[in-house]
Amino acid sequence: MHAPLDFAEIGADVLARIRSRAPRVHCITNTVAQQYTANMLLAAGAVPSMTISPQEVAAFVTGADAVLVNLGTFDSERRSAIAMALAAAAGKPWLLDPVFIERSPLRAEFARRLLNSGPSVVRLNRAEFAALDPTGGPPECFATAHRTVVALTGEADVVVDGTRRIAILNGDPLMGLVTAMGCAGSALLSAALAVEADAWLAAVAALAVLGVAGEIAAEGARGPGSFAGAIIDALYALDRAAFRARLKVS
Amino acid sequence: MHAPLDFAEIGADVLARIRSRAPRVHCITNTVAQQYTANMLLAAGAVPSMTISPQEVAAFVTGADAVLVNLGTFDSERRSAIAMALAAAAGKPWLLDPVFIERSPLRAEFARRLLNSGPSVVRLNRAEFAALDPTGGPPECFATAHRTVVALTGEADVVVDGTRRIAILNGDPLMGLVTAMGCAGSALLSAALAVEADAWLAAVAALAVLGVAGEIAAEGARGPGSFAGAIIDALYALDRAAFRARLKVS
Amino acid sequence: MHAPLDFAEIGADVLARIRSRAPRVHCITNTVAQQYTANMLLAAGAVPSMTISPQEVAAFVTGADAVLVNLGTFDSERRSAIAMALAAAAGKPWLLDPVFIERSPLRAEFARRLLNSGPSVVRLNRAEFAALDPTGGPPECFATAHRTVVALTGEADVVVDGTRRIAILNGDPLMGLVTAMGCAGSALLSAALAVEADAWLAAVAALAVLGVAGEIAAEGARGPGSFAGAIIDALYALDRAAFRARLKVS
Repeated sequence: MHAPLDFAEIGADVLARIRSRAPRVHCITNTVAQQYTANMLLAAGAVPSMTISPQEVAAFVTGADAVLVNLGTFDSERRSAIAMALAAAAGKPWLLDPVFIERSPLRAEFARRLLNSGPSVVRLNRAEFAALDPTGGPPECFATAHRTVVALTGEADVVVDGTRRIAILNGDPLMGLVTAMGCAGSALLSAALAVEADAWLAAVAALAVLGVAGEIAAEGARGPGSFAGAIIDALYALDRAAFRARLKVS
Repeated sequence: MHAPLDFAEIGADVLARIRSRAPRVHCITNTVAQQYTANMLLAAGAVPSMTISPQEVAAFVTGADAVLVNLGTFDSERRSAIAMALAAAAGKPWLLDPVFIERSPLRAEFARRLLNSGPSVVRLNRAEFAALDPTGGPPECFATAHRTVVALTGEADVVVDGTRRIAILNGDPLMGLVTAMGCAGSALLSAALAVEADAWLAAVAALAVLGVAGEIAAEGARGPGSFAGAIIDALYALDRAAFRARLKVS
Repeated sequence: MHAPLDFAEIGADVLARIRSRAPRVHCITNTVAQQYTANMLLAAGAVPSMTISPQEVAAFVTGADAVLVNLGTFDSERRSAIAMALAAAAGKPWLLDPVFIERSPLRAEFARRLLNSGPSVVRLNRAEFAALDPTGGPPECFATAHRTVVALTGEADVVVDGTRRIAILNGDPLMGLVTAMGCAGSALLSAALAVEADAWLAAVAALAVLGVAGEIAAEGARGPGSFAGAIIDALYALDRAAFRARLKVS
């Protein structure tokens, strides 16, 4: 019989490894999210890069430890950058964040095609998941069929692969009032993938760390404006004891 | 005889409707302003989207309740996105923010052509208005000729249509030291257009709400860096009593 | 014999001139850095513009007092905007910030070609300098060969031309955890070039001012999230006495 997993230890370990190894995360992401995403990665100890230039993206991905593919800006330049990035990423972990695919059929179709390239994790909210998976089945089936991890964020974050499921109950409603919070969270998750080979554990760790940081930040914030900076501060300062004391999973 | 309008009640009502109805505002705006604009809309209770992809912009506009057209990034991609957005926006309120047209004759000419598409409101500063209206006449004549509302922002904000004029005396000089404050204000005004059919009232309400939030924020800010977040907080937390106590119109 | 230069006086004077003259700085910079760069320029008293549209960039540069060329987004649109901007900038000071050229050979080659257009200052970190100057020689030789000023930022900032060298020891490690801090610093330096004809003095002044602002900001910050706003506040509020008391050069 296995001992139960100590998620507080795992999450704190993943964060400690990001801080000590400073993984490079190449982010193909939307223009709204770029600055906040870079700041969250820096606060966690990772090193962001963001280019989508066709002449450079392969070189940046080759030097990176993980790749984030976010569909929030869906222009032809980014679509070809994604193709080049994934070709260069062979063997490296990468995350798909199919932003707003429920609002755009073309974007949803593009996201479904990207599943063939084997994302380590797909992070999305429930509306996006419904657009990505027309079967209407549970995320476990989707994860099994596509051999990936599904990280469904919302009031509770649920992370599943074919055999494991966990709900993370941390976080704060203010997180939904800061633009690019989800995108930046996907970037943090990508950094976790760079230091933790088990993609399910990496996803659990990153979402738990961000949720706990959000709770800490909310206690001192006067609204979404101060909260946006406070969660970066809280992520930067998060220690093992505070993380353990606050983590709520089920 | 009509009772005089109670602008404190109107402004608070418009904000309350944004908070309860969560209107979708599609923003074609410049890359400098995207993040701040999205955060201001979220703090007010609206739902921003930002895509300019030719394959998607019509779908996003179709699902939106109001549209913002900001000329701060003036590239060919945005120009064609604007044309597609306005074609899809038929009947929906939209706002024109002709950023920096006094610095670029081509941009000014483009802005003048957009007037033919019937913006509900044109929001701009005095230098931009002088470039938009070569007649040098008062904004009332311009508003009448183009059947629109002119929201002239500056030390005092002046909102006119063909028959009504008001000056809003709230605000703080720090608002001029945060980039994209005007652009984000235009987005807030667009959200107001989504919940208030009288475009003049919507403009008055949105500029008054932002000006009062700016005054509250300035009291606690140590400079433009903290002010940028504080005004978002103040907008998020603004209540009817504080708004009424501070509103200054003439 | 010359009296030794009073760098506290020089730095405070340059900042005072930026505040009183409000120089226009046209920035061709990456999308990650645009917002933060604009906010830093505004806090210092300068007026930013950012367009890269081929139909407009010459008009904006013609109306500007200094130009910033930052390679952090390296797309074909920006490359042609740079060519147009430098053609229009004849005689005006301009700064080259060759972001991340150590990660991309094409970007490094492009940066080396730009040296022929005579930048007033090249601001970069040590890894970028090694990629820019394959000779491995000291920055003084590079500055002499290219008749420019080299501003090497890092734990200490070193500013050299062919005959002068200074190290600025102010600053705080949190500056490295805010994305676009270096890019925004280059913009501040460009504003200094607009008001100080001696490019070496302008570089020393701008980096010293930013370093001192960073130290002040770090004292009140809880992490990189609050620090990002606090350094803008500190720059905005910096006075001659505080600058003199903290400045450390050698």
